[in-house]
Amino acid sequence: MHKDDWFHLADQCTRFLPGHGRAVWTPHAVFTQLAALTAPDLKPDFYGGGELIADFEKRVAELLGKEAGVFMPSGTMAQQIALRIWSDRHHSPHVAFHPTCHLEIHEQKAYQLLHGLHGVLIGSPYQLMTLDDLKSVREPLAALLLELPQREIGGQLPSWDDLVAITTWARERHIALHMDGARLWECQPYYQRSYAEIAALFDTVYVSFYKILGGIAGAMLLGPPDVIDEARLWQKRHGGTLVQMYPMVLSARHGLDTRLARIPQYCAKAIEIAAILKSRPGIELLPDPPQTNMMHVFIRGEKDRLEEATSKIAREQKIWLFRYFAPCQIPGYCKVEFTVGDATLEFSVEEIRRLFEELLR
Amino acid sequence: MHKDDWFHLADQCTRFLPGHGRAVWTPHAVFTQLAALTAPDLKPDFYGGGELIADFEKRVAELLGKEAGVFMPSGTMAQQIALRIWSDRHHSPHVAFHPTCHLEIHEQKAYQLLHGLHGVLIGSPYQLMTLDDLKSVREPLAALLLELPQREIGGQLPSWDDLVAITTWARERHIALHMDGARLWECQPYYQRSYAEIAALFDTVYVSFYKILGGIAGAMLLGPPDVIDEARLWQKRHGGTLVQMYPMVLSARHGLDTRLARIPQYCAKAIEIAAILKSRPGIELLPDPPQTNMMHVFIRGEKDRLEEATSKIAREQKIWLFRYFAPCQIPGYCKVEFTVGDATLEFSVEEIRRLFEELLR
Repeated sequence: MHKDDWFHLADQCTRFLPGHGRAVWTPHAVFTQLAALTAPDLKPDFYGGGELIADFEKRVAELLGKEAGVFMPSGTMAQQIALRIWSDRHHSPHVAFHPTCHLEIHEQKAYQLLHGLHGVLIGSPYQLMTLDDLKSVREPLAALLLELPQREIGGQLPSWDDLVAITTWARERHIALHMDGARLWECQPYYQRSYAEIAALFDTVYVSFYKILGGIAGAMLLGPPDVIDEARLWQKRHGGTLVQMYPMVLSARHGLDTRLARIPQYCAKAIEIAAILKSRPGIELLPDPPQTNMMHVFIRGEKDRLEEATSKIAREQKIWLFRYFAPCQIPGYCKVEFTVGDATLEFSVEEIRRLFEELLR
Repeated sequence: MHKDDWFHLADQCTRFLPGHGRAVWTPHAVFTQLAALTAPDLKPDFYGGGELIADFEKRVAELLGKEAGVFMPSGTMAQQIALRIWSDRHHSPHVAFHPTCHLEIHEQKAYQLLHGLHGVLIGSPYQLMTLDDLKSVREPLAALLLELPQREIGGQLPSWDDLVAITTWARERHIALHMDGARLWECQPYYQRSYAEIAALFDTVYVSFYKILGGIAGAMLLGPPDVIDEARLWQKRHGGTLVQMYPMVLSARHGLDTRLARIPQYCAKAIEIAAILKSRPGIELLPDPPQTNMMHVFIRGEKDRLEEATSKIAREQKIWLFRYFAPCQIPGYCKVEFTVGDATLEFSVEEIRRLFEELLR
């Protein structure tokens, strides 16, 4: 089904199984909310400067226990910049990451074409990177990027001990540690440690504001003041120092104010949902149980049939199930990424069980 | 005076001599207006796709007589991308522009550090580029960038004949022509030709939405469909394909709807203002008369004294005059960039004359 058809279908729905639903993605609703939340005398940011953005950078830096942070329009920008800076400082073009890293599969090889970096892919695309995988690298690495959680394999997380072992090994070898924390917010219930404790294992951290936090767009890069200062130069070079970014900043701030505290609920609900899905023949879960608010659901069935069943539920019950059935390595299966958000909380597990029954019928 | 002090001062003013004033830069006012302008069922954009953004790209492309356009968060991004594409296609790293080109002086040499381009600077920083200047270039050029109007020298424009001569010469030599149209909207009264006729002299054109049009931020790159298609790849690489850009798009659209038609008024007012300023001893204008809605005003006086006089007027009359007195080549002078917008139209030339008298007293 074409992307536009899916949007058209979503538009007719009143309830949404994944994510936060319409509240975060209807421009009219978002503007109305932001107008209500914004003091009439609030001053805008100006080319990355001004109180609004500086205060927000300070707040997130404190939350993550880092000395400095810089707001950027996207994580694509933030992470290339972090790796470029570490590469320059460590006099090596070699930066290492998982084969499913966002930089490797979603950014048109920008790290290579814009920054002349060489990506060293570590481990299997279907599993978390291990210390043994890392030890097999032969290039002198400038930096190691770890994604917490690893999105493309269902949001898996290494155990705390494994994470400490990997980061310690790298640190001892003077390899800079960068965290792809696009979904870091969602890791806290699993680790049961503060964000600052998790971030302390890394030199630089990127976090996102438009996923679980429901902002319009935007990201932040955090780390030592000198690195963040240099990152501001690269942000300008990327064309990312927009004259005004306050819609992104204010919606991000609202996301932190409201949704950060709900993350344990989202994660608990994901575990409940997994428990009722796992017993169903024709369904496999990754990971099982979920470690964050996300899981990948492998469904036995042809894409066309699953799309048709999804459309039928949307048309008849005004319930939106999934946006996309991705192809799988194993024939006969499709994959959906299922993320629990505000909208999901409004469904009982019983109703979710029924919806999956209808989908698989 | 520190930037923050200027902002603090501006905050206390009720009237603004340059630009559009508070309406375009108070977040609360902008959100309230956008909420009122946005239909409740309007769907957002999604990673550069969707009807909202596609329709806007089509509208601007038609206005400029180009086949395709792509919305981007910034001109810094759009112009590097255009030059990179022309460089790749013409198998040369050499791209030419005026010494005061935005790429040369405001982007931390991104064209070189991100794209490996070599900038060939043409002509004097204090004058428009001439055909003779261009003919003296020895490198095989991939592209020539012309900025219409040339912002750093008061918004000067070449005559139509000179513009045609330069672009014809370049075209005959298969040098791609790129227009930095950050302020193209403001050129129409001078040339008395349609935007499409002006843009037809160029292969690619960049326009901005947050200057005279008063949008939140944002730009567009326009040109042949294959170039614009490739530009979308580079936009992703730069980290500029934000998940949602609708606040920028909707405010840009509103700017086109409302302010484009007022540009002749802004330009006519600039000429009127110049006429009353030019006779004043201690003031020099560039250009005289203004060719757009902008002029550079060179004021004889020390920076500290001019800042103090400006602050006094702000404090006592709640009128905001200028943000910044820049140093000049000739000692004893300061430069201000004066841009006529909605807020300026509310001042009579008589009042403006009085304000300058007070400033210079």
